[in-house]
Amino acid sequence: MADTAVLLLNCPDQTGVVATVADFVWRNGGNIIDAEQHTDDVDGEFFQRVEFTLADFAHDRDELPSALAPLAERFGMDVRIRYSADRPRLAILASRAPHCLVDLLSRWSAGELAAELSLVVSNHPDHADLAAFHGVPFVHAPVGDDPAAQDRSVRTLLVDAGIERVVLARYMRILSPEFVDTFPNRIINIHHSFLPAFVGAEPYRQASERGVKVIGATAHYVTAELDEGPIIEQDVTRVSHRDSVDDLARAGRDLEVSVLARALRADLGNRVLVRGRRTIVFH
Amino acid sequence: MADTAVLLLNCPDQTGVVATVADFVWRNGGNIIDAEQHTDDVDGEFFQRVEFTLADFAHDRDELPSALAPLAERFGMDVRIRYSADRPRLAILASRAPHCLVDLLSRWSAGELAAELSLVVSNHPDHADLAAFHGVPFVHAPVGDDPAAQDRSVRTLLVDAGIERVVLARYMRILSPEFVDTFPNRIINIHHSFLPAFVGAEPYRQASERGVKVIGATAHYVTAELDEGPIIEQDVTRVSHRDSVDDLARAGRDLEVSVLARALRADLGNRVLVRGRRTIVFH
Amino acid sequence: MADTAVLLLNCPDQTGVVATVADFVWRNGGNIIDAEQHTDDVDGEFFQRVEFTLADFAHDRDELPSALAPLAERFGMDVRIRYSADRPRLAILASRAPHCLVDLLSRWSAGELAAELSLVVSNHPDHADLAAFHGVPFVHAPVGDDPAAQDRSVRTLLVDAGIERVVLARYMRILSPEFVDTFPNRIINIHHSFLPAFVGAEPYRQASERGVKVIGATAHYVTAELDEGPIIEQDVTRVSHRDSVDDLARAGRDLEVSVLARALRADLGNRVLVRGRRTIVFH
Amino acid sequence: MADTAVLLLNCPDQTGVVATVADFVWRNGGNIIDAEQHTDDVDGEFFQRVEFTLADFAHDRDELPSALAPLAERFGMDVRIRYSADRPRLAILASRAPHCLVDLLSRWSAGELAAELSLVVSNHPDHADLAAFHGVPFVHAPVGDDPAAQDRSVRTLLVDAGIERVVLARYMRILSPEFVDTFPNRIINIHHSFLPAFVGAEPYRQASERGVKVIGATAHYVTAELDEGPIIEQDVTRVSHRDSVDDLARAGRDLEVSVLARALRADLGNRVLVRGRRTIVFH
Repeated sequence: MADTAVLLLNCPDQTGVVATVADFVWRNGGNIIDAEQHTDDVDGEFFQRVEFTLADFAHDRDELPSALAPLAERFGMDVRIRYSADRPRLAILASRAPHCLVDLLSRWSAGELAAELSLVVSNHPDHADLAAFHGVPFVHAPVGDDPAAQDRSVRTLLVDAGIERVVLARYMRILSPEFVDTFPNRIINIHHSFLPAFVGAEPYRQASERGVKVIGATAHYVTAELDEGPIIEQDVTRVSHRDSVDDLARAGRDLEVSVLARALRADLGNRVLVRGRRTIVFH
Repeated sequence: MADTAVLLLNCPDQTGVVATVADFVWRNGGNIIDAEQHTDDVDGEFFQRVEFTLADFAHDRDELPSALAPLAERFGMDVRIRYSADRPRLAILASRAPHCLVDLLSRWSAGELAAELSLVVSNHPDHADLAAFHGVPFVHAPVGDDPAAQDRSVRTLLVDAGIERVVLARYMRILSPEFVDTFPNRIINIHHSFLPAFVGAEPYRQASERGVKVIGATAHYVTAELDEGPIIEQDVTRVSHRDSVDDLARAGRDLEVSVLARALRADLGNRVLVRGRRTIVFH
Repeated sequence: MADTAVLLLNCPDQTGVVATVADFVWRNGGNIIDAEQHTDDVDGEFFQRVEFTLADFAHDRDELPSALAPLAERFGMDVRIRYSADRPRLAILASRAPHCLVDLLSRWSAGELAAELSLVVSNHPDHADLAAFHGVPFVHAPVGDDPAAQDRSVRTLLVDAGIERVVLARYMRILSPEFVDTFPNRIINIHHSFLPAFVGAEPYRQASERGVKVIGATAHYVTAELDEGPIIEQDVTRVSHRDSVDDLARAGRDLEVSVLARALRADLGNRVLVRGRRTIVFH
Repeated sequence: MADTAVLLLNCPDQTGVVATVADFVWRNGGNIIDAEQHTDDVDGEFFQRVEFTLADFAHDRDELPSALAPLAERFGMDVRIRYSADRPRLAILASRAPHCLVDLLSRWSAGELAAELSLVVSNHPDHADLAAFHGVPFVHAPVGDDPAAQDRSVRTLLVDAGIERVVLARYMRILSPEFVDTFPNRIINIHHSFLPAFVGAEPYRQASERGVKVIGATAHYVTAELDEGPIIEQDVTRVSHRDSVDDLARAGRDLEVSVLARALRADLGNRVLVRGRRTIVFH
C-alpha cells in the first residue's frame, strides 16, 4: 500500500465544499483514492473523509496545515490530518478477564492492527506472561487503598509513554474525569451489553432475568458520562431460555472480542468522526 | 400431518417426571413424536412439552384431563392440553400502519397460520378493503371522545366473537387492565424496539439520536405493565449514520413484520410456556 | 426531497477524475449531496456515483449529455445519467407462488418503491384479483403448447408497454436470450438459494440432503447464462436438522421476499453499477 | 455440575422408545436432566440424546452396556454412552495460519473446552513457542519428500498418544483414507467457505471474482470424500465490493475461528449424532 494522507473534515453544509477540497488535493499533486461524505440532515453539518496518495503531493507534513488553512477558514471547517504511515502508540488496559486482551495481542502479533502496541496495564498481575510472550511491556498497577492514586499513576504512565490511543479491554475501573479528558475520544471501551439496554453492572444477569432472546455488546468512546459515549460498533447474538447466566456470559465474551476488534480497526483506519453523542463511521 | 395432542406442563423439578409422563402416554396408546424439556436452575422449576399421536390414544378430549389428574397431583404439576386439530379463533387489532396486518393476512391466506382468523378490528377505517379482499370481517372501532368506552366495546366484541388469541399488529392504543386480564398471555404485541432499550414512544428517533448501530423489534405477551410482558421473539438489523429516522423506521417495519410472524407461529404451535416475566420457547 | 441527478460513471483509474467531476457539477450550479467511489484494484477501473441538486443547475436534460461529453472523452469514461424524479416503468412477472408478488405490491402501494408499477404478468391466472386490488393491470400469459411463443409474446407486451425494469418474482420460466438481451441488466431475479451453492432446481431439497446449517437467497441481474448474472444482494438464515424440506422452503420464502425487496430498492435508487459478473452497490 | 451420563441413540421410529428409555433410566435411579429427540421423516429413523444424573444410578461404567443391551436389541437401537466427567484426549493439527490454533489454545487455557488438550502437531515449526506458552506438547512433523510417510507418522503419533478427537485448525494437508478411517467422525475440519459453494482452493478469490455479498465458513467431520463430510456448524458474514481478497480472507478468519469453536463445543458436549452426510446437533 502506498503512503496516503487522510483528511477528516466537517463544516456547515454548503455548496462547493466537495469540489473545492477535491480541487485542492488535485492541484497539489494528490490522487484521491477514497472519498466518502455524509450530511446530517438534522443539524445541517457536512462530514467528509478524503484519502489521497502522497507520492507526488506538493506539501509535506509541516506545510499541509497552513496550506489547508484558507480553505478551512472559507468554509468554517474543522480538519484533522492523518497519515497511513503513522502507527499511533497504543495502550491496552485490562483487569482479570483475558479474552479481549488475548485477542488484541494476537491480532497485533499477526500484523492486523495499524498501531504501535506500547503497553499493557492491569490492576491485576495475571497477564504479565501473556504480554511478555507477545513482547509487549506490562505494568501492574494495583488499586490498593487509594483508587484515585492508582487512576493518577496510570494516567501519568500513559502520558509519559506518549500513548495516543487507549483500549479498555474489559478494564473494570471507572476512569476519573481527568483521565478521560486527557484522551478525548481516544479511549475505546467495550461494554458487555447492547447499550442503552442493561446499563451498569451484571448485564448478563439482567438479560437472563428479563428473558431476552438477543444479547449484545457495544464499543464506544469513553466520555465523562458513564456508558454514554459515542457508539462506534455494536453487534448481537441470539440466545434462548436454555442459556444460563454463564452461557450468556460466554456468548457475550465472543461478541465483546469481535465488536472491540472491529471498533479499533475503524478507529485506527481513521474512519471515525465524532459528532456529539454519535459517530460517523466511514468504510 | 396426523392429529396430535400437546401437553405443556411444569412442576417443581424432581425425579421421575419424564419417565412417568412418557409411560402415561405410551400405556394409553399415544406415540410421542416430540418431547422437549427445560429446567430452570434458578427457581428449580421443570418444564416440558410433549407431543403425541392420537390415532390409537385411549382417551378422548373429555376424558384426558381427569385421566391426567392423578399424575398432575402427584408431581404438583400444571398441565395445559392442546390439540393440533384446533385452530384458535384469532383477532388482529391494527391502527393506521398496514405492514404487519398485510403480512399476517397474506400468511393466513397462504395457509401458514394454524388459526381461524375471525376478525380485524381497527380504530381507523383504512383497512376495510384489505380485510375484505382476504375475506375476513372488519370492524371499525373509532376512539372518539371516550377512549375507555372504545376499549370496553372492543373487548366485548372479542369476547362475543369467542376470540382466543389477539394480535396487536401495530395497534397504537394502550389496553386497559380489564382488557389485558380478559386474555391472560393471549395477547401478542409487536414493539418497535429492542426492549428493554428505547421503551416508549418514538424509538427510532431515540435510536437515531443515540447513534446506535443496531435496531431491533420485540414480540411479547401483553401484561398490565406496559412493555414489560414476557418476550417471545426478538431480532435486530444493522444500521449506520447514513440512516435517517425514516430509514430506521422502514428497516424497523421489515423487522416488526418478521418478528411478529415468528412469535405468532411459536404461539400457535403451542410451543411457548410463560414463567413470570420470561418465556420458554420450545422448537 | 429536492430533485436530484445521479451520475453513474466508470473509467480507467487515473488522477484528477474526482476533482474534475466535482468541479463540473459545482461550476454548473449543482450541489453534490452524495458521492461515493470505488477503485477495482484488480483491473484498475474507477467507479463513482455522484448525486447533486438540480434547483440551480445550468443544464436541462437535453443539454447535460453533451455538456458532459468533453469530460467523458478526456477520461475515457462511461456515464449514465439518472434523475430522482423519474419513476421507471416496472413489470413484475410471477408464477404460482404469491409471496414475492404480494410483498412488492404492498410496498408499492405503501409508496416504498420509486417506480411506476405498470404491469403484472403471470403464466397462471391466480393473481388477477390481487393485482386488481392494488390497481395494477394484470395479464395472463399461459404457456400452452408453444413456450417460445409465450416468451415472445411476453417480451412484446413489455416492450409495447414501455417497460424499463422487469422483476422476476419467482417466475418459473427460463427467459430466451432474445428476452434477456432486450433488457440488459434491467431484469432482476430472485434465486431461492445462496448462489453459487445449489444451482438449479429444488435447492431446499438439496440443502436438506446436504444437511446445511444455513440457507440463503440471491437477487441478481439476469444474463444469458442461467444463475450466473451479477449478484445484487444475498442473505441467509440459520436452519437445523429439525427443519423439514417444507420448513426450509417457508424460511426461504421469507428470505426471498426481503432479499428481492432490498435488491430492487438498490436498483431503483440508482445505486448499482455492473462490471462483468460483479456489481458495485453504493449505499 | 454433577456428573452425568449421556445416551446418544438411534433406531427405526416405533412406538414406546421414549417411554422405555425414560423408564430404564428412572428405574435404575437416574434423573433425566435433559432429553431431546428427532425423527427423520424421510428415512424413518429416530434419534435421541438423554442426559441423566449418576449420583444414585444403579450401574457403573462396566455394567451399563450390558444393562442396556436388552432394550437396544428390542428396538434395534444403536447406543453410544458418554460421561460428562470424561475429557477426551484432543490433538490439534495446524499449518502456518495461527488464528484457529491461537483461539483454541486460549479457550482451553480459560477452561472453556471439556477436553484434555494433549498435543499440537504442525507441518511447520512456527507454533512451538505458542504451544509451550500454554503448556501443551508440540510436535513438528515436516512433510519433506515423502508426504505419505508424514501422514503415516502423524497418524501413528496420534494413535500412540491415545488421541480421541482431532481438530484440523487450518491444517493444509489432505489426510489419507487410512488416517481418516482411524478416527471415524472424530476429526473436525474448518473449511474456509460456505460449503457446498466454493469447494476447493482459494475460496476467497473465487468469492471475490463471483462478487458474492456474503461469505461463510463450515466446520464438518472429515470423511474420505474431500469437503463432503457431515456439516456440524456454519456461519456467514456480509461483504461488499469494497472488500479485497485480503479483506475477505481477514473476515473469513474471524468466521473460521468462531465456527470451529462452536462445532468443537457441540462435539465435546456429546451433542452431535451423524447420519450419513448429515448431523443432528442437539442443544
